[in-house]
Amino acid sequence: MLDQIADVGKDAKRGGYSRHGYNKPELELRHWFVEQAVRRGLNVETDQNGNLWAWWGERGDNALITGSHLDSVPGGGAFDGPLGVTSALEAVDLLQAKGFKPARPFAITVFAEEEGGRFGVACLGSRLLTGAISPEKALALKDPDGVTLAEAMKAAGYDPDLVGRDERALKRIGQFVELHVEQGRGLTVPVGVASSILAHGRWRFTFSGEGNHAGATLIEDRRDPMLPASQLVLAARKAARGGGRATVGRLVPNPGGTNVIASTVDVWLDARDSDDARTRAMVAEISEAAHQAAKEEGCELRITEESYGDTVHFDSALRDDIAGALGGVPALPTGAGHDAGILAAHVPTAMLFVRNPTGVSHAPEEFAEQADVDEGVKALAATIEHLGS
Amino acid sequence: MLDQIADVGKDAKRGGYSRHGYNKPELELRHWFVEQAVRRGLNVETDQNGNLWAWWGERGDNALITGSHLDSVPGGGAFDGPLGVTSALEAVDLLQAKGFKPARPFAITVFAEEEGGRFGVACLGSRLLTGAISPEKALALKDPDGVTLAEAMKAAGYDPDLVGRDERALKRIGQFVELHVEQGRGLTVPVGVASSILAHGRWRFTFSGEGNHAGATLIEDRRDPMLPASQLVLAARKAARGGGRATVGRLVPNPGGTNVIASTVDVWLDARDSDDARTRAMVAEISEAAHQAAKEEGCELRITEESYGDTVHFDSALRDDIAGALGGVPALPTGAGHDAGILAAHVPTAMLFVRNPTGVSHAPEEFAEQADVDEGVKALAATIEHLGS
Repeated sequence: MLDQIADVGKDAKRGGYSRHGYNKPELELRHWFVEQAVRRGLNVETDQNGNLWAWWGERGDNALITGSHLDSVPGGGAFDGPLGVTSALEAVDLLQAKGFKPARPFAITVFAEEEGGRFGVACLGSRLLTGAISPEKALALKDPDGVTLAEAMKAAGYDPDLVGRDERALKRIGQFVELHVEQGRGLTVPVGVASSILAHGRWRFTFSGEGNHAGATLIEDRRDPMLPASQLVLAARKAARGGGRATVGRLVPNPGGTNVIASTVDVWLDARDSDDARTRAMVAEISEAAHQAAKEEGCELRITEESYGDTVHFDSALRDDIAGALGGVPALPTGAGHDAGILAAHVPTAMLFVRNPTGVSHAPEEFAEQADVDEGVKALAATIEHLGS
Repeated sequence: MLDQIADVGKDAKRGGYSRHGYNKPELELRHWFVEQAVRRGLNVETDQNGNLWAWWGERGDNALITGSHLDSVPGGGAFDGPLGVTSALEAVDLLQAKGFKPARPFAITVFAEEEGGRFGVACLGSRLLTGAISPEKALALKDPDGVTLAEAMKAAGYDPDLVGRDERALKRIGQFVELHVEQGRGLTVPVGVASSILAHGRWRFTFSGEGNHAGATLIEDRRDPMLPASQLVLAARKAARGGGRATVGRLVPNPGGTNVIASTVDVWLDARDSDDARTRAMVAEISEAAHQAAKEEGCELRITEESYGDTVHFDSALRDDIAGALGGVPALPTGAGHDAGILAAHVPTAMLFVRNPTGVSHAPEEFAEQADVDEGVKALAATIEHLGS
């Protein structure tokens, strides 16, 4: 089914896909999902936070929910997100073909802006649903063009005034299972289950110096924020030890001219480690180095935590139940964040992983073998049958 | 007169002005210039390379030419460029008021895309006019949105097929004098003349690694091009010694997502020093460090020279003649490139500088006192009278 959407949201400049919350391709994918769900006799509704729900039969409380997201990182791959949605639709096909009907409420969800590729905060739809982010903070988030989430939702036909913690939806989710392509090389069989997600967050470092002429300004007169920004990148690598991960993938000098000393530089740090203490210590070490480097160049530094989530340990009973029903598939941890990780703080949650032969993700080269994808669909169908009977 | 154009091309995001070759505000400024020139009885023509010429009286060979440019760096100041154009128009006002008429052909020029803020190569109009860049290379230059110079010229109503070395124009320029705001703090009196321009150029460093997931990819599996890109920024600072200047003001990770290890990073180096040998040695030292850093991270590096110009020594006879006519104003070198520097290889060329109290340039804070601006206009009028009688 991924072939059906292979042309939506291609990024000619970066390669891969740039499908972001409420942008044109993401809205096109939403329409496509609704069409596919309706074709299978599912009833689709949109919740107050822009997440889609496709109910098989009557909607109700304590439901079994599966799903993922359709948005991507900038220049992302074809699998991260959509695989969990298409696998859910295909699992329904398998179950309908064999005459299965869920004995409890069941729905497929599509969460909004999971990657934070447009508004900077990952898992925005599930964070809003669970109250992990306040409506005020979320609605004021801006995309790189200065458009707020409130404006983007309004333009897409959603009412931003309704955004916020959704008690009704939380009551409805009895269990949540998300199928996802694995994002490392930790899985050596077609399918596995998730044990935990690293603690992780995003921090924005804004260095301020003095914009000036690249040719006419003597070196000794400079306060160039690109210097401490570069030190930050190196400090992040140095601080990521013993399984910790620290990455700078986004760095924007302002104004960004070749013959101009930048006046400010924004740098986004993505940092993850096995627990809260280790993650906080790593970020503190990087921040200290950044402050020191800023001081040496006569620059100022402001650090903002844009999002943070502690380590997620998925419900062990549900995990073991599913792994057993699938014949004893392995459990493995992941460094990647997911809506399932946000929901795990509120309801029993599990994840199925599909093998990634190269471990590449968040890039056009992201890949899974068709045979493994088929195994994933079968495993998800078996899980739905097991939990939904 | 700068007040008349103070609202054109303001950059709400960066501050200052973003007026670039053939973009909307730059085209608006061209129209404004034509209107102002016509109001003074000048005859305006556009040459084959998109440069404007406003003739006072009959056009002809061996003319006295003055002028500058109307485009800016991204988020640039109000003076760099426009001051030379408005001062020329105001100098004509002063001369017309006192009944002066030039005894030889005289024109005010506006050169296209002097900053290279859109297409990356500085002094594009004067480089094309003198043949310092080939039409093929120039027309294929792309702006950040992928629009070529050829496409931008066509969209603005210019014929890209005509672009290239302009023998007729070169014959017409007998002497060229450019008035410009000083871009350092080297001038302690209102007006001075230029002695030389540093050798300078732009190099593009493209680092290629492996795009991947910022959370799921182990540190030891990474080939992250942001690491050598950051080392390059630090190496540039280290290599800029003894008056040399090396700057990275533009750095673009691709795809540029917070939770994505970049697959490639483009870094632009602006490097300048007193002569060719020193500049080349500095760039070689930086390149060597960049290659070493790329190798250590398992990344590839491609370096492209986007533009280069050797040291310019302005015509000493013309410089001393003007300085003398202005009552012995000081001569000073500059680190900034100018169309006058390109033309200097072909015709006797001089520059007048107007004092910059803070030395800030290429930034919204760029400034000159009104009294100094008035002195600049008077000095330019006196120069035109002296050379044009």
